[in-house]
Amino acid sequence: MDPYVIQMTGSGNLPSVLDMHVNISGRSSAPGKMKGRKARWSVRPSDMSNKTFNPIRAIVDNMKVKPNPNKTMIALSIGDPTVFGNLSTDPEVTQALKDAVDSGKYNGYAPTIGYLSSREEIASYYHHPEAPLEAKDVILTSGCSQAIELCLAVLANPGQNILVPRPGFALYRTLAESMGIEVKCYNLLPEKSWEIDLKQVESLVDEKTACLIVNNPSNPCGSVFSKSHLQKILAVAARQCVPIIADEIYGDMVFSDSKFEPLATLSSNVPILSCGGLAKRWLVPGWRLGWILIHDRRDIFGNEIRDGLVKLSQRILGPCTIVQGALKNILRRTPQEFYHNTLSLLKSNADLCYGALAAIPGLRPVRPSGAMYLMVGIEMEHFPEFENDVEFTERLVAEQSVHCLPGTCFEYLNFFRVVITVPKVMMLEACSRIQEFCEQHYHCAEGSQEECDK
Amino acid sequence: MDPYVIQMTGSGNLPSVLDMHVNISGRSSAPGKMKGRKARWSVRPSDMSNKTFNPIRAIVDNMKVKPNPNKTMIALSIGDPTVFGNLSTDPEVTQALKDAVDSGKYNGYAPTIGYLSSREEIASYYHHPEAPLEAKDVILTSGCSQAIELCLAVLANPGQNILVPRPGFALYRTLAESMGIEVKCYNLLPEKSWEIDLKQVESLVDEKTACLIVNNPSNPCGSVFSKSHLQKILAVAARQCVPIIADEIYGDMVFSDSKFEPLATLSSNVPILSCGGLAKRWLVPGWRLGWILIHDRRDIFGNEIRDGLVKLSQRILGPCTIVQGALKNILRRTPQEFYHNTLSLLKSNADLCYGALAAIPGLRPVRPSGAMYLMVGIEMEHFPEFENDVEFTERLVAEQSVHCLPGTCFEYLNFFRVVITVPKVMMLEACSRIQEFCEQHYHCAEGSQEECDK
Repeated sequence: MDPYVIQMTGSGNLPSVLDMHVNISGRSSAPGKMKGRKARWSVRPSDMSNKTFNPIRAIVDNMKVKPNPNKTMIALSIGDPTVFGNLSTDPEVTQALKDAVDSGKYNGYAPTIGYLSSREEIASYYHHPEAPLEAKDVILTSGCSQAIELCLAVLANPGQNILVPRPGFALYRTLAESMGIEVKCYNLLPEKSWEIDLKQVESLVDEKTACLIVNNPSNPCGSVFSKSHLQKILAVAARQCVPIIADEIYGDMVFSDSKFEPLATLSSNVPILSCGGLAKRWLVPGWRLGWILIHDRRDIFGNEIRDGLVKLSQRILGPCTIVQGALKNILRRTPQEFYHNTLSLLKSNADLCYGALAAIPGLRPVRPSGAMYLMVGIEMEHFPEFENDVEFTERLVAEQSVHCLPGTCFEYLNFFRVVITVPKVMMLEACSRIQEFCEQHYHCAEGSQEECDK
Repeated sequence: MDPYVIQMTGSGNLPSVLDMHVNISGRSSAPGKMKGRKARWSVRPSDMSNKTFNPIRAIVDNMKVKPNPNKTMIALSIGDPTVFGNLSTDPEVTQALKDAVDSGKYNGYAPTIGYLSSREEIASYYHHPEAPLEAKDVILTSGCSQAIELCLAVLANPGQNILVPRPGFALYRTLAESMGIEVKCYNLLPEKSWEIDLKQVESLVDEKTACLIVNNPSNPCGSVFSKSHLQKILAVAARQCVPIIADEIYGDMVFSDSKFEPLATLSSNVPILSCGGLAKRWLVPGWRLGWILIHDRRDIFGNEIRDGLVKLSQRILGPCTIVQGALKNILRRTPQEFYHNTLSLLKSNADLCYGALAAIPGLRPVRPSGAMYLMVGIEMEHFPEFENDVEFTERLVAEQSVHCLPGTCFEYLNFFRVVITVPKVMMLEACSRIQEFCEQHYHCAEGSQEECDK
């Protein structure tokens, strides 16, 4: 049933609203109404708002359990690195913002795609010889979310489809379905460190496929694709003539044993819209500054897609000018040490969490290489009390006050996601509680007594 | 002709893009292609981006004339009060922003509708006994533009229509048409200080009418509706059962001889979404902080429209948190003197400009009562050299280097809009040049020699 069908709220002074003949399109079929008029009040939310569905909110908000009152809550569910107090942005970043305020130069309207000077800074910062960028290739947006929204809005019509990763970031679906765009999921393979099932991608492409979304480094997996895997992805896109939206919001957030390769640096023919922002790397997700980098060396997007993005940016007139004004100093003055410290903390927590969870019977964590997350497989056959990952994570909250998002939030069953941005003691405590939880609920699967006795 | 029809950019290495059989939906009808694959690159902008059309940009960007090189340019076209240097925001406003930065509390994600504490501040600031507000009635947005976008997106489906003022702010049409919503214009009457032609509004309502947009104080007219006129508007909406989007971004920006009445304070039965923001009154349009105030005392919107707005806010996750964090001090600490000074300057310029232009044969300015604009009628019969208001304003640029937007930008012919936020000397100089221009081009209309001789 449509969850947004109007509930008739029986307030006695509103007989008109209680009329059940009013239908969804806002037309009334009630007899006797005057021509060209609405006979009675009937205000209904649009199809677009009905179709705007955030699966994480739906699952989390429907969670009925309460944390164990004897244990403090540890929220490993929140993808906001700033909430635990251990990861703060650099003083140079906040100083840049205050300097922008003091300059008095950034209070008026900017061009809707952002100040030229700010776009020049981004272009120069992300310029590669293999993937050159100029200011005209940069569009500033209200966070990476709006960057993705604009990319989808310019590339896809209602009725077309897009290919998105599973497990994957829920916003792709939220945005696409709100616009009437169909979502087709391609699988990431845990046994291959979450590489893309390329054969499947290729099989999903049809003539209505508007684009392929590649998220690297990955939320929720924490995986980082190798150069050779990225080249294979590009080969598929080239063969199928499908442009790519590269969600690279976690770009450069990779551990020392990995390397982040911006997708566009590996391709000279596939048109790519790369989306990024200040949110994660600079630890200021609330500031809502994102960007689109247009890579189109074969002129396949052409002026039409560029113009389309510019026109769409005129709908809400771009991101906060003060943050735009601070961009130059943010990019130039943030010390390398800041980035290094963030990654050290993440890497340390990743190792710690992976090691601890890998030792727990019934769990199968996948070692992350970047971003801020780690995915953990649940051998559900060993936890017969729980119907699925949602119930597993609910009971984990109820008994251990540890909250992880179930894989279902990312359309991937029998996994849960762990956020690794928490302080080390919290990470340790959480792993210890997860261990206790699993030990209490672990059952040997039928026919595997041998394994259990080991 | 649609100005955004794709121009084929004839780059020789891209034969596929030049294939004229490819149609707009992204499907290729080219023969011989493999099943389930795209045979060649064909990336086209979506219908939505093609339909996103900003008439001001189209008219201004197509203007072919250059300013008179012997006269410095005076841009009375720019609706940004900050660009001339004479109107700056208050030091308390910028201090509030810096304090928010220094607190370190506003770097993470806020709820997508805004921090509870910030929404409480807005609710308390705009609370009236006749139109009570709580935090739950407030949604913070990325500027007033996004406020209007969300309101339209929640109330109207493609194929429905909305009623917007003519002359009116171009963004209503830009947003609506990008979403496939039809725009019907109702007239504002210059001879009645731009009051709404209410009979016409009533005649335009049909069963597909999703809402009525009321903009008060008005851009581009600078008009301020009286209490009794607002009550009549509400009576029409109530009779026709049409909810109202009240664009009150210029709320409280009225001259001393007028009074701003928030529309919702005058109605207990018409559901109203009031849109506002920091942009104009606090002179920081670039900061992109807007809001929607939900007035629904008869529960006609109900939870469905509220939930719809919340869901739509999840698409791009709300406005910049630093500005949200500064809201409390901005609203509480900005001295009354600041608002007073802004309005004094506007009122003084309005009087000066109105007086000067009213004395020019062939022009018929309409005296403004608020906002930052004034509309001037052109008696085109006295300017036979010019085909229309666009040509009139183009020649004004070419000869006098004074740039005003033609009424055509606001769908209202034979008028032009003057921005009155400029420094006084610039206002005087502009009026003097407009006078010279009109005197040079004024012709007596046939049969009115008598009038000319006067």
